[in-house]
Amino acid sequence: MSKVSTPTFFEGPEKKVELAVRDGAVDLRSLGDEFWHSVVQASNAQVLSQLSNEHQTAYLLSESSLFVYADHLTMITCGRTRLVNAVARILERVPPDDIALLVYERKNEHFPDRQPSSFYEDAQRLHGWFGGRALRFGDEHDHHVHVFYSEKPYRASVGDTTLEILMHGLSDEVAATFTGCERPEGSTIAEEIGLPKFLPDFEIDEHPFTPAGYSMNGIRGADYYTIHVTPESLGSYVSFETNVDFRDDFSKLVRRVVDVFQPRSFDVVAFTPAGSPTGELELDRHHCKDRVHTQAAGYEVAFWHAYLPMERPRPPAELSLDD
Amino acid sequence: MSKVSTPTFFEGPEKKVELAVRDGAVDLRSLGDEFWHSVVQASNAQVLSQLSNEHQTAYLLSESSLFVYADHLTMITCGRTRLVNAVARILERVPPDDIALLVYERKNEHFPDRQPSSFYEDAQRLHGWFGGRALRFGDEHDHHVHVFYSEKPYRASVGDTTLEILMHGLSDEVAATFTGCERPEGSTIAEEIGLPKFLPDFEIDEHPFTPAGYSMNGIRGADYYTIHVTPESLGSYVSFETNVDFRDDFSKLVRRVVDVFQPRSFDVVAFTPAGSPTGELELDRHHCKDRVHTQAAGYEVAFWHAYLPMERPRPPAELSLDD
Repeated sequence: MSKVSTPTFFEGPEKKVELAVRDGAVDLRSLGDEFWHSVVQASNAQVLSQLSNEHQTAYLLSESSLFVYADHLTMITCGRTRLVNAVARILERVPPDDIALLVYERKNEHFPDRQPSSFYEDAQRLHGWFGGRALRFGDEHDHHVHVFYSEKPYRASVGDTTLEILMHGLSDEVAATFTGCERPEGSTIAEEIGLPKFLPDFEIDEHPFTPAGYSMNGIRGADYYTIHVTPESLGSYVSFETNVDFRDDFSKLVRRVVDVFQPRSFDVVAFTPAGSPTGELELDRHHCKDRVHTQAAGYEVAFWHAYLPMERPRPPAELSLDD
Repeated sequence: MSKVSTPTFFEGPEKKVELAVRDGAVDLRSLGDEFWHSVVQASNAQVLSQLSNEHQTAYLLSESSLFVYADHLTMITCGRTRLVNAVARILERVPPDDIALLVYERKNEHFPDRQPSSFYEDAQRLHGWFGGRALRFGDEHDHHVHVFYSEKPYRASVGDTTLEILMHGLSDEVAATFTGCERPEGSTIAEEIGLPKFLPDFEIDEHPFTPAGYSMNGIRGADYYTIHVTPESLGSYVSFETNVDFRDDFSKLVRRVVDVFQPRSFDVVAFTPAGSPTGELELDRHHCKDRVHTQAAGYEVAFWHAYLPMERPRPPAELSLDD
């Protein structure tokens, strides 16, 4: 049996908010670092470091990431954070009428009973502020993401895409890479694991956590990608997300990321502008269990769940009861 | 989109306890109906009706079932019950030293954040009374069952088997059968859906719930089978369980039950005496995603998760936010 010596209930799976302001509203970056730090604190996370260029500021957080542009932002938090409280803080400076789009997403958690709120409670609160709809991609009792989106009509611009690859059950070898890891001299962990080969020319900001874990943001002009690793064996998890336009290379990019982390199963969530759906997801070794698709908030939104078939029965996991 | 007009959070997936007393301990049936009613009440359920024969008393509960024999019992409860409280009540009359075996099992819930306790909390409590081990069959973030078992050496008798088929996502047609259903004149719902064809000669006690749902116990000598249906579309679920020795007919019995309920996915949990493992599960249309196996508590314990592959993407489910 695979012995789990201490139950570590750190919740890797994330909550995420995407928010766009209307033309003529405040420049979000002009609200300043101090304000964005307070937004992060409202969610119960802290800013660890940041990178900036002419297009964006990328904040690396104690629990995930925040990317702020003039007219939109993406904020991702994991653990037991309350991301909806960050939205409440933003509303103090950006009135709801100036918000053209809000999409709130929540991946199914490993330990939902340890969360301070459920998706349903979060969505009710957002619905009170914006009016919107709540969807579930995937079954309630299986891999799924919940999405709330504001109902105001919104048209996504031509290149406005997001790709999320949400990976569960890392191989022991890959998990070990992110346990007690340190920044290598003269290079980055991102380089060590080979990410720049297919995502070249990104400026990297990364943070290994003690005793385990890894977070990174990469920026290149207006592009970003971000990776967060929770290697603990009771719920190992990696999220990858990018706004790089992946449509010409969709299946290949998914397969390359999956090859790096070797998860037992993963979900893919793709947002592309309405009328320009993502193509089929073609996999090598993983099988596809679920596929969900709709148009929402000016986007095509697609979800896949895939897993690695097992050749033989595996042993159960043992939970320690002696703490 | 499949519109969910009201969020009905009734939790179909069950908790279960199996308990055996040592030779020379109290005859459990001699403790009497009043005592067993109080055990059921301790879990926060009620007895609806009961059937008896020379081997057993089968209680049909407001939330599932209880089967009491002279030397062992099986109690299954769903919803927001606290089955561990029923164990505490039993311990008032049966001292821990007289308990030869306790197995506590908990299926992954649809709405774990609405449960009064987590499996981990339950297992800690049982561990305090009995000493034992806690296992998880399947991944934390996916279909799984948690099992706590007492560590005292135990030898299962030759014919001591249990088969559970835990089914999710009923077809609309099957769900409609159990919504607003009534006992048919001169026959049972069990007959209507064809169960007696492959489980003949059982005496049936059944209860359709208003506005939706169905529970039944069937007994034949020392054999039982029991079915509980939660047809609500936000988390439709059926459990089937039997102690009929299924080993000669394992895959066939699973396929026949699955054919009746047509679930999108299901888990199988099988207990057989140590040294006599269940064979392979051979499926027609469903694919197997997970297989877990170990020896525990004098049994071979095996778990499978299977699902129906999808031919095309499906729409997301919509959650109502207007209540």
